[in-house]
Amino acid sequence: MESRFPTERLRKLREALEGLKLEGYLVFHPANIHYFTGSQQAGELSQALLITPDSAILFLPEMGAYQVSRELKAKVDLEVSRVGEEALTRLRKAVQAFKLLGFDDASQARLTKLRVGGVKLKAHPEIAEGLRMVKDEGEIRAMRKAASILKRGFRAVLNVLKPGIREFEVAAEAEYALRMGGSDFYAFPSLVASGGRSAYPHGPPTSRKLRRGDVVVVDLGARFSGYCVDATRTFLIGEAKPTVLKAYQAVLEAYKMAAGRVRPGMSGSEADEYARRLLQARGFGEAFTHGLGHGVGLEVHEAPRLSPSSRDLLKAGSTFTLEPGVYLPGRFGIRVEDTFLLAEDGVKPLTGWVEKETLLV
Amino acid sequence: MESRFPTERLRKLREALEGLKLEGYLVFHPANIHYFTGSQQAGELSQALLITPDSAILFLPEMGAYQVSRELKAKVDLEVSRVGEEALTRLRKAVQAFKLLGFDDASQARLTKLRVGGVKLKAHPEIAEGLRMVKDEGEIRAMRKAASILKRGFRAVLNVLKPGIREFEVAAEAEYALRMGGSDFYAFPSLVASGGRSAYPHGPPTSRKLRRGDVVVVDLGARFSGYCVDATRTFLIGEAKPTVLKAYQAVLEAYKMAAGRVRPGMSGSEADEYARRLLQARGFGEAFTHGLGHGVGLEVHEAPRLSPSSRDLLKAGSTFTLEPGVYLPGRFGIRVEDTFLLAEDGVKPLTGWVEKETLLV
Repeated sequence: MESRFPTERLRKLREALEGLKLEGYLVFHPANIHYFTGSQQAGELSQALLITPDSAILFLPEMGAYQVSRELKAKVDLEVSRVGEEALTRLRKAVQAFKLLGFDDASQARLTKLRVGGVKLKAHPEIAEGLRMVKDEGEIRAMRKAASILKRGFRAVLNVLKPGIREFEVAAEAEYALRMGGSDFYAFPSLVASGGRSAYPHGPPTSRKLRRGDVVVVDLGARFSGYCVDATRTFLIGEAKPTVLKAYQAVLEAYKMAAGRVRPGMSGSEADEYARRLLQARGFGEAFTHGLGHGVGLEVHEAPRLSPSSRDLLKAGSTFTLEPGVYLPGRFGIRVEDTFLLAEDGVKPLTGWVEKETLLV
Repeated sequence: MESRFPTERLRKLREALEGLKLEGYLVFHPANIHYFTGSQQAGELSQALLITPDSAILFLPEMGAYQVSRELKAKVDLEVSRVGEEALTRLRKAVQAFKLLGFDDASQARLTKLRVGGVKLKAHPEIAEGLRMVKDEGEIRAMRKAASILKRGFRAVLNVLKPGIREFEVAAEAEYALRMGGSDFYAFPSLVASGGRSAYPHGPPTSRKLRRGDVVVVDLGARFSGYCVDATRTFLIGEAKPTVLKAYQAVLEAYKMAAGRVRPGMSGSEADEYARRLLQARGFGEAFTHGLGHGVGLEVHEAPRLSPSSRDLLKAGSTFTLEPGVYLPGRFGIRVEDTFLLAEDGVKPLTGWVEKETLLV
């Protein structure tokens, strides 16, 4: 049943191409190639996917051909380059047959190598981005499974959090539980930031030992069938200082405020503002130094963005994080985050199971 | 002592700029920003680094400022954008002061947002690439440490390889050992490919259970202070079929042939040819479906490339893999890989400790 999704995606893409009067769409970005072919390895091993109204051709090196041919879930032809062949030669040749192709995005270096006299390549990252932003049934199913795996990661964290354990040991236990739970690698490198380091919004684990009284921010991701989920919990080792509790309550209120108000049709900046105003009212406006959230799917950061400058429109079927935080340099930081699915009547948590009210360990 | 390296790197870069008559160099690529600032988080959290003859300015969002300011190892000023500010606004403004800037590489979408009338941006990825290709003392030290961590990962694999264990469980044990050994996250997602799947050159672990008679290819990486190492061993569970032993011996001979012949001044294609000819002579030429190796450092794939089409020149101080392999679809695959440092008189293995002759488990 899952196999019909890439076919449906190709159909929608071709509709978009017709509307824009493009002869085809060149896909370079690995997550986009994965999306249109149903094969993660196609994304990782290919040079590009060329989609036209009546064909889809994947350009890939010999080493990936056997594996990818067994994984493909859509009707895609393979154009295989032999070892030693200049990687882009076959693609350059294929592209020459067109006058105007759209493409998703690529590095300048790659485009320079590909540029062919007479062919116009026009950037249309929004086509793939727009399709990917609204998840289908199979995608939601994969994300629910990833969320159930992520739960194991946080349980492992709860089991080991105590004075004396090192930040990287906490990460090791969490990641072991994720892998044993069936996570494809990881969605992103785990963050474990304790004590003064919790004031880093992006704190990878170090050899710092946890102490009584520490705030510990743990941000973990899991991945299933290529689909990511992302969640953060903030723990307190032992007794909570009143200032820490006050900040924690404010973050939790901001989280609940945003989760209660987000609706389809709202912009990313509007959603952000619900949480931001709440934190401002509690005196933590300056300490909320990042946006409210980001889309999650085949990539852990994708459209839509939820931030003061985002004009992205939130749509039913989108999946994104809500993650208000406050960071007080030299003191501590707090963040609470879940991945949500937006339905017509508001957001439903995908990862929202670990108690958020219980921060004491 | 380590802190002098980024300063030295900036000095060399400025020399190159002068030679090319560029007013400055815009650095977008995270690994390059890490290289010139000495801060991994600067690479992960910044928008860009602008280096001119007398300044270095890092453009980053508020959320990274506190953390990055504590990590920097070179004299770099911070230009911090507030939440809600369009990310590239400050950078665009700074760039307007120039007529001709070089840059490393960036996505088309990013460059489009940045393009300012009157300023010419010229792609010079080879400047950063060339500097990074020759490792300094501190980099080699970090890679040696990563190699000692990687050893623990392979020991963990040897401890658990037996019929009945699943591929992803092997990965979980290896990665746990790497994390507990002090690896920064991982250099790349571990590959564990057993039985018929060993014929995939890039086989991530699945739930397949190992069986007696299986060939198992395990490709692991470790990372320390941002520096990666990469190695592969092929194991056999139980008795080896003669065809497997024949292929294994051929791969090992190719590995030794390449390791014995590579010298500074040789091109990447010349190095590749030593291994390729050997495998051709043993009847496995068609089965060696990828290049001989790749540079390793802040990224697990960087310059130089060693492949039939590579014109990269190998230099003393470069670090790269040698990894001949044979892949027989529907049957099995074999690969042996280590990360090496090239000295004046040839390569020295950084990861070359796990026995390569012992493939039986």
